[in-house]
Amino acid sequence: DQPLTIIAGPCQLESRDHAFMIAAKMQQACAEAGAQFIFKGSFDKANRTSLSGKRGLGIDEGLRIFEAVQAEFGCPVITDVHTEDQCATVGEIVDVLQIPAFLCRQTDLLLAAGRTGRGVNVKKGQFLSPPEMSTVADKVASTGNEKILLCERGTTFGYNNLVADMRGLPTMARTGYPVVMDATHAVAQPGGLGASSGGQREFAPVLARAAVSLGIAAVFMETHEDPDNAPSDGPNMIYLDQMPKVVASLMAFDRLAKSDPLRV
Amino acid sequence: DQPLTIIAGPCQLESRDHAFMIAAKMQQACAEAGAQFIFKGSFDKANRTSLSGKRGLGIDEGLRIFEAVQAEFGCPVITDVHTEDQCATVGEIVDVLQIPAFLCRQTDLLLAAGRTGRGVNVKKGQFLSPPEMSTVADKVASTGNEKILLCERGTTFGYNNLVADMRGLPTMARTGYPVVMDATHAVAQPGGLGASSGGQREFAPVLARAAVSLGIAAVFMETHEDPDNAPSDGPNMIYLDQMPKVVASLMAFDRLAKSDPLRV
Amino acid sequence: DQPLTIIAGPCQLESRDHAFMIAAKMQQACAEAGAQFIFKGSFDKANRTSLSGKRGLGIDEGLRIFEAVQAEFGCPVITDVHTEDQCATVGEIVDVLQIPAFLCRQTDLLLAAGRTGRGVNVKKGQFLSPPEMSTVADKVASTGNEKILLCERGTTFGYNNLVADMRGLPTMARTGYPVVMDATHAVAQPGGLGASSGGQREFAPVLARAAVSLGIAAVFMETHEDPDNAPSDGPNMIYLDQMPKVVASLMAFDRLAKSDPLRV
Amino acid sequence: DQPLTIIAGPCQLESRDHAFMIAAKMQQACAEAGAQFIFKGSFDKANRTSLSGKRGLGIDEGLRIFEAVQAEFGCPVITDVHTEDQCATVGEIVDVLQIPAFLCRQTDLLLAAGRTGRGVNVKKGQFLSPPEMSTVADKVASTGNEKILLCERGTTFGYNNLVADMRGLPTMARTGYPVVMDATHAVAQPGGLGASSGGQREFAPVLARAAVSLGIAAVFMETHEDPDNAPSDGPNMIYLDQMPKVVASLMAFDRLAKSDPLRV
Repeated sequence: DQPLTIIAGPCQLESRDHAFMIAAKMQQACAEAGAQFIFKGSFDKANRTSLSGKRGLGIDEGLRIFEAVQAEFGCPVITDVHTEDQCATVGEIVDVLQIPAFLCRQTDLLLAAGRTGRGVNVKKGQFLSPPEMSTVADKVASTGNEKILLCERGTTFGYNNLVADMRGLPTMARTGYPVVMDATHAVAQPGGLGASSGGQREFAPVLARAAVSLGIAAVFMETHEDPDNAPSDGPNMIYLDQMPKVVASLMAFDRLAKSDPLRV
Repeated sequence: DQPLTIIAGPCQLESRDHAFMIAAKMQQACAEAGAQFIFKGSFDKANRTSLSGKRGLGIDEGLRIFEAVQAEFGCPVITDVHTEDQCATVGEIVDVLQIPAFLCRQTDLLLAAGRTGRGVNVKKGQFLSPPEMSTVADKVASTGNEKILLCERGTTFGYNNLVADMRGLPTMARTGYPVVMDATHAVAQPGGLGASSGGQREFAPVLARAAVSLGIAAVFMETHEDPDNAPSDGPNMIYLDQMPKVVASLMAFDRLAKSDPLRV
Repeated sequence: DQPLTIIAGPCQLESRDHAFMIAAKMQQACAEAGAQFIFKGSFDKANRTSLSGKRGLGIDEGLRIFEAVQAEFGCPVITDVHTEDQCATVGEIVDVLQIPAFLCRQTDLLLAAGRTGRGVNVKKGQFLSPPEMSTVADKVASTGNEKILLCERGTTFGYNNLVADMRGLPTMARTGYPVVMDATHAVAQPGGLGASSGGQREFAPVLARAAVSLGIAAVFMETHEDPDNAPSDGPNMIYLDQMPKVVASLMAFDRLAKSDPLRV
Repeated sequence: DQPLTIIAGPCQLESRDHAFMIAAKMQQACAEAGAQFIFKGSFDKANRTSLSGKRGLGIDEGLRIFEAVQAEFGCPVITDVHTEDQCATVGEIVDVLQIPAFLCRQTDLLLAAGRTGRGVNVKKGQFLSPPEMSTVADKVASTGNEKILLCERGTTFGYNNLVADMRGLPTMARTGYPVVMDATHAVAQPGGLGASSGGQREFAPVLARAAVSLGIAAVFMETHEDPDNAPSDGPNMIYLDQMPKVVASLMAFDRLAKSDPLRV
């Protein structure tokens, strides 16, 4: 098994300088810890709780930043797509297209993402059971593209809360596709603050560690130097200056987990 | 308060003749019972559980059938839209655009639907609490279009099951917008049959009656003359020949409920 | 079908005078509306959230009050039991023994309650599915006592919240035993206030009406003249002065429901 | 921090020989792996799904077996108590009294258990949020006995299923009391087989590992040499012959977790 991949970056792309600052810090942290690194950022927040929430830089500006990050740091980049139309354009540059959880059953979006030939990271809808992700993956795979990742990000658990069911990780792994744990969205509290989501940032490293101990392929974590002033998802992002320690810790669990695989 | 509206029809449009057969039966049932009637059908099932599930007739054929239903029966029609692009086209003909539950947070879709000036029925995502529908409605209303309906169709309740929380109906009604109960999707069992959803058709009239007793504006029910052989949602659709009795019964509860409104 | 029974009273017995005041008001309200009436009170709150919550008057004082209520008002009385030992003693006086939801699987308690020959109202545990109540009822019935009632009071729905699934009422009715809706505990928010439970009193009449529209046997509602100063369950009890209107309204729905039974 | 404690044994005590066989195997496995060991068994199953489920050997026979296990193996023993009366008797012999999840709010039982001066392991009710266990612990601690353990065993998650929320472990640890993960009951499927519970034995080591990676005090696992023919809880018990490997693996994660504690 490969060492753990860390998918990390800000929730929203804010600027090229901001992206570089975070990518530099994360790349160094991952290199020191022996982790692979994929830089994450969103160019558009298409499903904000409230209309007044910031949408983002847009696709053109976003793609220019991703190109620059690739050139500067030599790392792959991942971003989320929201419509079929975006897929081909985004796929010209970005290494992995991410399907948002709410959209994980939209057949045409999955097919368009698959047809780019790029990696496709599908987040499990909060409304789906883990075995249902098998038919989701089949939609992507029908395009001939098997570079699929399946990502846990929490399941609806009453109102304004999510729960990350650890059984879901080995269940999704039965498909044969790599499994990702999105540790920061799984601690979000949707609608928890009325016009925006709340979150329990302190539990993100808890869920990340628990998941990594099961031998998964990657952890997804959003991070920011000042989460409380970030344009979105502040309550659940991890402080950037804590990330080196978090990554190093996860790598120790990753090595142990991969030396002692669970058979489920 | 207006008498209850019945939104009914097959899950998928199958043909003009099939639509006419169902519309005729439902229109008569509603007329006899004193209910308003909106004919429902889908031209595309964009988020089937499995890629092998039937998608539908497509937008052009679908819109021709809706025009014919309007001309023949003089009733309004409703259908679901899945992308921004579809909204203007669908809005030229169809009276009410419906936003699928999975897509109820997609800002651009809500705005495009609102801009048509048509009615917009937004299904509450299975992952949302009822108060969160207020910010969803605000997105549509920002276009100047206040012809908004908010629809309960069940909330994720563990895996492969939904629960219809009756508290959600008066909660959503606090927005001032009419509230709809989707009684047939709320008894679906998502992914319950592996490559397709299961359902508990026998409970659809139960949820419909409970909801109508609270004084809501409309009930949404899918119906088919032979549900077990319908192209989609068979396990939760109501037999067409039972609908006149179901509608008549609901109208009695509607009259009582509206003569004795609950203040919440 | 018999007219609806209203099971009502304070959460805790506070004194003979207090019990008489509430019983008088409720008996009159039920008589005027054509409902049957059972007076409810607890002599011991054996499972308070916090040790500092008031426990109650105790079994001896409680039973004296129940006897006095029976003598004064000629109505049956119901109270909850917590141990096998209490059953025989309580059963000498009280007409219906109630099994608390947390204890609904305790075999010996169910058997002891059954052996009294009195009615046994078992609340469905917040952790049980409705069909599981069939094996619970079987335990009581094994004593030869079939005077069993099965009571919905909400199912765990994430943290600090319950949901009342209307499908559960006809499901439990399939056992053949009368079904009760506990409308005030179903709107409790367990642990919602830290050292005590919160509640959403405004939704109790909502759940009561929805349930009664399905044709159930009885509604359970706790009431108090000053809920915010009651020793327990204040946030979910209904104001006593609102009860006559609530009961009259429910009876109208009961008559309609029983004239038009749902077959499930 | 102390090394992980393994609490293990059969669901039901079956006989002295059977207890010795399992205790011998588990004690050796724990000794080899560097784990502490507590032998677990139940003398009465007081809340079986169905009346026809086997109840157990009873308290007298049970206590004789516990004494014999203590004498033979020198290990502490744990068993569950169901009534106040049992506490003093059981506390004369057994090292740790366990409060079943359904009974975790019964004040008198908690006080009686606390008064024995023995360890008290309280399972979190399936209906409670993790922070609510703080008031539960306070009840026990009010007796002056602070030898309290708090145990996660899953939270109600829809019908017939439980979910183990990893956030609950550090949340309960904030009380200062040791936290236990019951990995076999958390994979039970209550009522999943109609007249008895189902289970997903294959996920028990998954949940155990995830929990241990967070640095907990103990793991609780039921085990049997032939689970499918065990008198209770067969579907979720771990095969005895797999336990040495499971324990050894958990100890590696325990050492890593305790060398790198999470601060939550």
